[in-house]
Amino acid sequence: MSLYAQYFYSVQADELLSDKHLIAQMLRFEGTLALAQAEQGLIPQASAEAIANCCQTDLIDTESLIAAVRLGGNAAIPLIKQLTQAVKQKYPEAAGWVHLGATSQDVIDTATVLQIEEFIYWLDEKLAVLSELLMSLSRRHRQTLMVGRTLLQQAKPITFGLKTAYWLAGIERTRERIAAIESKILTLQLGGAVGSGNTFISAAVQQNLADKLNLNAGFAWHTQRDNLAEWAAVLGIIGGSLGKIAKDIALLMQTEIAEVLEGAAEGKGGSSTMPHKQNPVLCTAILANANRLPPLVSTMLAAMPQEHERSAGLWHSEWEVLTEIMRLVAGSVERSTELLEGLEVAPQQMLSNLERTNGLIYAENVSLALAPKLGKAQAHELLEQAVKRAVSEQKHLKTVLTDMALDLPDLDELFSPEKSIGNSLLIIDEILAGIEPDKYQKT
Amino acid sequence: MSLYAQYFYSVQADELLSDKHLIAQMLRFEGTLALAQAEQGLIPQASAEAIANCCQTDLIDTESLIAAVRLGGNAAIPLIKQLTQAVKQKYPEAAGWVHLGATSQDVIDTATVLQIEEFIYWLDEKLAVLSELLMSLSRRHRQTLMVGRTLLQQAKPITFGLKTAYWLAGIERTRERIAAIESKILTLQLGGAVGSGNTFISAAVQQNLADKLNLNAGFAWHTQRDNLAEWAAVLGIIGGSLGKIAKDIALLMQTEIAEVLEGAAEGKGGSSTMPHKQNPVLCTAILANANRLPPLVSTMLAAMPQEHERSAGLWHSEWEVLTEIMRLVAGSVERSTELLEGLEVAPQQMLSNLERTNGLIYAENVSLALAPKLGKAQAHELLEQAVKRAVSEQKHLKTVLTDMALDLPDLDELFSPEKSIGNSLLIIDEILAGIEPDKYQKT
Amino acid sequence: MSLYAQYFYSVQADELLSDKHLIAQMLRFEGTLALAQAEQGLIPQASAEAIANCCQTDLIDTESLIAAVRLGGNAAIPLIKQLTQAVKQKYPEAAGWVHLGATSQDVIDTATVLQIEEFIYWLDEKLAVLSELLMSLSRRHRQTLMVGRTLLQQAKPITFGLKTAYWLAGIERTRERIAAIESKILTLQLGGAVGSGNTFISAAVQQNLADKLNLNAGFAWHTQRDNLAEWAAVLGIIGGSLGKIAKDIALLMQTEIAEVLEGAAEGKGGSSTMPHKQNPVLCTAILANANRLPPLVSTMLAAMPQEHERSAGLWHSEWEVLTEIMRLVAGSVERSTELLEGLEVAPQQMLSNLERTNGLIYAENVSLALAPKLGKAQAHELLEQAVKRAVSEQKHLKTVLTDMALDLPDLDELFSPEKSIGNSLLIIDEILAGIEPDKYQKT
Amino acid sequence: MSLYAQYFYSVQADELLSDKHLIAQMLRFEGTLALAQAEQGLIPQASAEAIANCCQTDLIDTESLIAAVRLGGNAAIPLIKQLTQAVKQKYPEAAGWVHLGATSQDVIDTATVLQIEEFIYWLDEKLAVLSELLMSLSRRHRQTLMVGRTLLQQAKPITFGLKTAYWLAGIERTRERIAAIESKILTLQLGGAVGSGNTFISAAVQQNLADKLNLNAGFAWHTQRDNLAEWAAVLGIIGGSLGKIAKDIALLMQTEIAEVLEGAAEGKGGSSTMPHKQNPVLCTAILANANRLPPLVSTMLAAMPQEHERSAGLWHSEWEVLTEIMRLVAGSVERSTELLEGLEVAPQQMLSNLERTNGLIYAENVSLALAPKLGKAQAHELLEQAVKRAVSEQKHLKTVLTDMALDLPDLDELFSPEKSIGNSLLIIDEILAGIEPDKYQKT
Repeated sequence: MSLYAQYFYSVQADELLSDKHLIAQMLRFEGTLALAQAEQGLIPQASAEAIANCCQTDLIDTESLIAAVRLGGNAAIPLIKQLTQAVKQKYPEAAGWVHLGATSQDVIDTATVLQIEEFIYWLDEKLAVLSELLMSLSRRHRQTLMVGRTLLQQAKPITFGLKTAYWLAGIERTRERIAAIESKILTLQLGGAVGSGNTFISAAVQQNLADKLNLNAGFAWHTQRDNLAEWAAVLGIIGGSLGKIAKDIALLMQTEIAEVLEGAAEGKGGSSTMPHKQNPVLCTAILANANRLPPLVSTMLAAMPQEHERSAGLWHSEWEVLTEIMRLVAGSVERSTELLEGLEVAPQQMLSNLERTNGLIYAENVSLALAPKLGKAQAHELLEQAVKRAVSEQKHLKTVLTDMALDLPDLDELFSPEKSIGNSLLIIDEILAGIEPDKYQKT
Repeated sequence: MSLYAQYFYSVQADELLSDKHLIAQMLRFEGTLALAQAEQGLIPQASAEAIANCCQTDLIDTESLIAAVRLGGNAAIPLIKQLTQAVKQKYPEAAGWVHLGATSQDVIDTATVLQIEEFIYWLDEKLAVLSELLMSLSRRHRQTLMVGRTLLQQAKPITFGLKTAYWLAGIERTRERIAAIESKILTLQLGGAVGSGNTFISAAVQQNLADKLNLNAGFAWHTQRDNLAEWAAVLGIIGGSLGKIAKDIALLMQTEIAEVLEGAAEGKGGSSTMPHKQNPVLCTAILANANRLPPLVSTMLAAMPQEHERSAGLWHSEWEVLTEIMRLVAGSVERSTELLEGLEVAPQQMLSNLERTNGLIYAENVSLALAPKLGKAQAHELLEQAVKRAVSEQKHLKTVLTDMALDLPDLDELFSPEKSIGNSLLIIDEILAGIEPDKYQKT
Repeated sequence: MSLYAQYFYSVQADELLSDKHLIAQMLRFEGTLALAQAEQGLIPQASAEAIANCCQTDLIDTESLIAAVRLGGNAAIPLIKQLTQAVKQKYPEAAGWVHLGATSQDVIDTATVLQIEEFIYWLDEKLAVLSELLMSLSRRHRQTLMVGRTLLQQAKPITFGLKTAYWLAGIERTRERIAAIESKILTLQLGGAVGSGNTFISAAVQQNLADKLNLNAGFAWHTQRDNLAEWAAVLGIIGGSLGKIAKDIALLMQTEIAEVLEGAAEGKGGSSTMPHKQNPVLCTAILANANRLPPLVSTMLAAMPQEHERSAGLWHSEWEVLTEIMRLVAGSVERSTELLEGLEVAPQQMLSNLERTNGLIYAENVSLALAPKLGKAQAHELLEQAVKRAVSEQKHLKTVLTDMALDLPDLDELFSPEKSIGNSLLIIDEILAGIEPDKYQKT
Repeated sequence: MSLYAQYFYSVQADELLSDKHLIAQMLRFEGTLALAQAEQGLIPQASAEAIANCCQTDLIDTESLIAAVRLGGNAAIPLIKQLTQAVKQKYPEAAGWVHLGATSQDVIDTATVLQIEEFIYWLDEKLAVLSELLMSLSRRHRQTLMVGRTLLQQAKPITFGLKTAYWLAGIERTRERIAAIESKILTLQLGGAVGSGNTFISAAVQQNLADKLNLNAGFAWHTQRDNLAEWAAVLGIIGGSLGKIAKDIALLMQTEIAEVLEGAAEGKGGSSTMPHKQNPVLCTAILANANRLPPLVSTMLAAMPQEHERSAGLWHSEWEVLTEIMRLVAGSVERSTELLEGLEVAPQQMLSNLERTNGLIYAENVSLALAPKLGKAQAHELLEQAVKRAVSEQKHLKTVLTDMALDLPDLDELFSPEKSIGNSLLIIDEILAGIEPDKYQKT
């Protein structure tokens, strides 16, 4: 297990995406292919069962497999040799029917798709939990006042619930995204040597095998990698959406802002030399992953122009990269869940930060209130004067405006954060209302 | 116009994506916003019409706009100043209502979306043409025999129509992709300073404005960039699919293969020093773009973790990059259309290349024919012997097999390319049958 | 001129890197090549002079050139045609000697190198100014106390001069980098059609031409792009180093921190809706560029595996990308210069922020002071207790420690920022001492 | 061991770059730091030796280390805890002196540098072997005639030795590159909590420690990552240079070209369904890696703008990515060595391919021969006619020219490949002469 297995990654997802599990899925393909071919009358049923029977990872010698990969250039060739050998020993008459009509890429691509299928299942559940957490935060902090910030400057009040609701909206769009493309991605690969099919992998076998593996039949896609690239891109988008959450939280955790805190598990976030620090340890992992994912997606896109009927290199460059993309996203999702579960929010500090500018963040309120009376330009100008005075005299803007005796009856209201959050509550409610809790539930 | 404007890019699309047109769309946003606000009773109708009236690019001094961008950090701030000035001169009482309640990002993002809308319209048409060309090629060359190649080696016969049908399948999936996400992407941006909305950009204004601009209303997405990132990714996928076509054609055009030829327009593809060469000039542009697109998509994904309610830099990094992505895809689509329109196919040369290996490409046929009789392992072994003899004695494999007196009645059939293309014709027919010609037609 | 020409880019550098200037450099190559060939007795001197005489951009019809690019696939072919035509009209006998023995890539690559040469000249000067500014800041703020921050948390005191000195060290290393690789990059390209040279571009011509163009002769590098890729990478590194400066400044400008300020030129940094904000407008441009540069460098690296003696696409993908990289770096360098020139530092605010944690940032001081007496572990433990009390009781750590009656005679010193900056001053002095002001001066 | 450990990677290099070895280097840092501090009189010599004594990987419980990483956010914190515990058990009085004055980043960055040092040592040797192989190929095939190809079209004759000599030139430049930057990269990291140093990591300790570790002392570079980014870029360049070699060989191995062959080790390059194929298995791995490396370099560049005195995420994103870059380069170097060692060259096939165009590849010869007599334009025109006739009448160009009775005495010479290779031999000799065999030898 790698040093950062529990930090950048998810132990659960790593299990699904392990080499061992890939081999298991390749064997599953071979066994199921034989059964499908038998059902179509192409090979003897007993042989098919014999083959399926031998499709067990413990019959495979991984070490010699790894050594053989470098000779054939992929894992399928030596795996099928070992499988054939295993079958031969137990059921000599069945050995001739192993992998019939299929090509290396058929088994590797399909095994990858089967891993993706399990990964999506895992991911869907995790994202559902994440959504729940965000919904809960949005409800709880619907009215928790804080300042909105643009270009890292205090701008105008919002509520913390508005921030989390926007985070939620992004996650929800991605859940829809996954639901929309899932079935396309989960397409069997079975095209034979050059994608033309053959007697042993007829349309009927294809359909039968796809059904058995719970995949879609469909055209072979040996050198048409658009679905895979799209899947990588969607994963990259998740990494970006989670990176946005982590970025916000890490910024809000700054000593000088201190509006939220990663929950402090025993020993978490400590520094080796500064015992008082509460480092954004989870945010850090998510942000690290967010920096690593986009270029990996770029690799998947760059791998698309594959030569002729099977590429020499571009296909091969996808293997570990797609796995790494899924592993990093899994890590980010897990860390994000922990982050949101443990998140401590400091409403008092948020209120206190709202007062940092001596009322300047309410300037737009005043501007909009003055506009109907004076026109926008003059309102803007007057306000600029007031702001300058407030800054130079270090006075609260409300005081300055009172001194200027402007025709603004409801000054208190203009400087009240509750009255300055626009349609925040409405937007939160609409985002929450738009989510059907069971929409993506598998039955 | 840039030196490579007609090579890497499309003059038509560049027009849609030009700075000038962006300014026009920004003005369109401002004018329409005023009208929507008037309809909701928020500003005087006459003022709204006055503003809309002034939203013309010829009232804008681009040079001073460019100089002002560096002060404000985006194009909206100086544009709105100029617009307000223009309104003030003609309709002093309306000047106060310009851009009311909106923020710079609202106008810039919405103008970008409006450009995307026009671009998608353009792209849909071009991709429809491309599909037509690929359908036509697939029909015409349904039975044009050629060799399929894997890892740049001759493998087994296919037909050229199978190759083009797979190209087509990839393009069709992307057309579906665009149709599926189009409406999500075409979402109005109208959140105000911190995404919380305000009186002047109420839900009603939002809906009204969206309707007028033919966009979806929807939540603000100031720092939730997933839709934009997805759009970039889909464009990257198009670039990859077209790169695959260009890669295949460039390889097939090699002097030693010569199975297809970019149509030779007068003066096209010539070399400055070698008058006889027919360079793959169009493929080259498409492949160059395919190398440039993936990292640009990476930038869009890397731009996702935007800080708080408006980013300091990541948002800004999207502007030119997204435009560049669309421009490059447009160029690739145009070049691909020219490429497929002019493509010259050489069936005789394809047949001739099928004979290059002295029958070795039919080895799998023999293997599959022997398998039921001898078992796969023994079949494979026998064949290996035959292949070795064929190579060392430089004989045709069929001759060697005849000499070996194997029990293979239909040797001629096994060595016939027509009989070796598996389900090629079926697959072509199914791909063609799956396309509903008017599916994406705009009404 | 593009909308963001003065924001993301440099008008000066854009001039050097313009298409027009590229054409001028291509013509310069052609004219000088003829003169070199004449000096080597390969073509008549009069003809060479005639050719050189015609190598003027105003004899070139750019519009028809652009249209012709799409036929030949690069700008050299139509340019040489136009040049030959121009020569023919004035000096018919000289027309036969234009571009003799050279290939399109020779002229395009060399013209690019000539642009790089001018760009490096420009860049060197700008980086010298940047270094001067950073030296000056480091001297001025050598003792300006502020808090050092790790993982966005306050950690321990440093001085602002230490921060700027580290910025400076990074810039200086890159100036050394450029000086070290400059001569490698500035290598003539002159290999002829397939890089094998020929009579007309003999080693003597090559040397002569290189001398005249102030470049190195050297082997042709038609499909060996390592020098160019390294140049792109070094530019990417500059973008990253400047991005680091901008990141720090943007973070320090946060409303809640407010330790520095981009100088407020008239109208700069204002928000369209919030008149009080001082946005980090220059930082934003630099950060945007820092997000765009790395993937562009990736394109240059991905372009390296070029096919055979001239690539079909990868070479072509370099052209605009390398230019864009230089343009973005130029913009970042100019913005950084403006940023540092105008930077306003707020030492009082820095001091005030040092007090934010109630002394917790001095915890390590205490820990190191206790360690020799109690051992590190026990010291750490004791301190942890004290820190916890300070936090829970909202007391200053010094007060808590006084209450705990630890054997720490110099408490005031331990809690003095001046005494807590380690070797900051020494490091600053050493960094400054290491810079020889005229090291990179061109003579 | 991963499934592709022997294909994309190098088992030797993976050992150097393993997590286990990283931990060993971290311990080496801690032990040596204590010894250096003792030599400077800062801690007791006996304690330092005790610490150094405990710096053994078998005292570390990796599993609990991995679990603890997620709490502290890096591997140093729990490692130092375990080390301290181990010291405490054996030498209680020494435990207080572990890791004194240093920060997590000091140990992690220095350990990385120590891994790089060993990796460079390994890499230098491998690149020396690679250079030897390329020199040997260049000498052996100095005069082996083949066609040069541009844009995948036959262009003009070269020799195979010219091709390999250019490959060599690229590799040699990179060896110089490594030698030039090596000492910069191998710089100790020792800055303490915020890069300001402190009593326990004085300049003297720094120098002492650096000497003991055979590194350069130098300024801390906690958030100045330019050297690391440059190292990543140079590695990316190696990947590109090797990718170029693999690209050329894979293309030359095409069935229709067949000019070279990866040596056929037993069982290598076979296809699971097509026993006759000789797949470019080694090229494929190198090309796959070449597609993966550039985006990883992009990540390293994107990681540069690190916040303040230690980044929250960007630094962390470097860890595994830099390792992966080195691993992939190591794999490519090893595969390239195997590739060049086993490369089979087919000079007869090269000669035969030179005849594919019926003499058209000699057109430029004729053109250059005619130019002095007729002027370039007329020569070009005449030739174009001849070429057209040769193509349409399927005649050899020499025959056509003979028919046209042009004034070309030495037709045979013009159509001789030996006479058409320009300065190929000279260039090869110069490239070979430029290499001092022992230049980079470590003593």
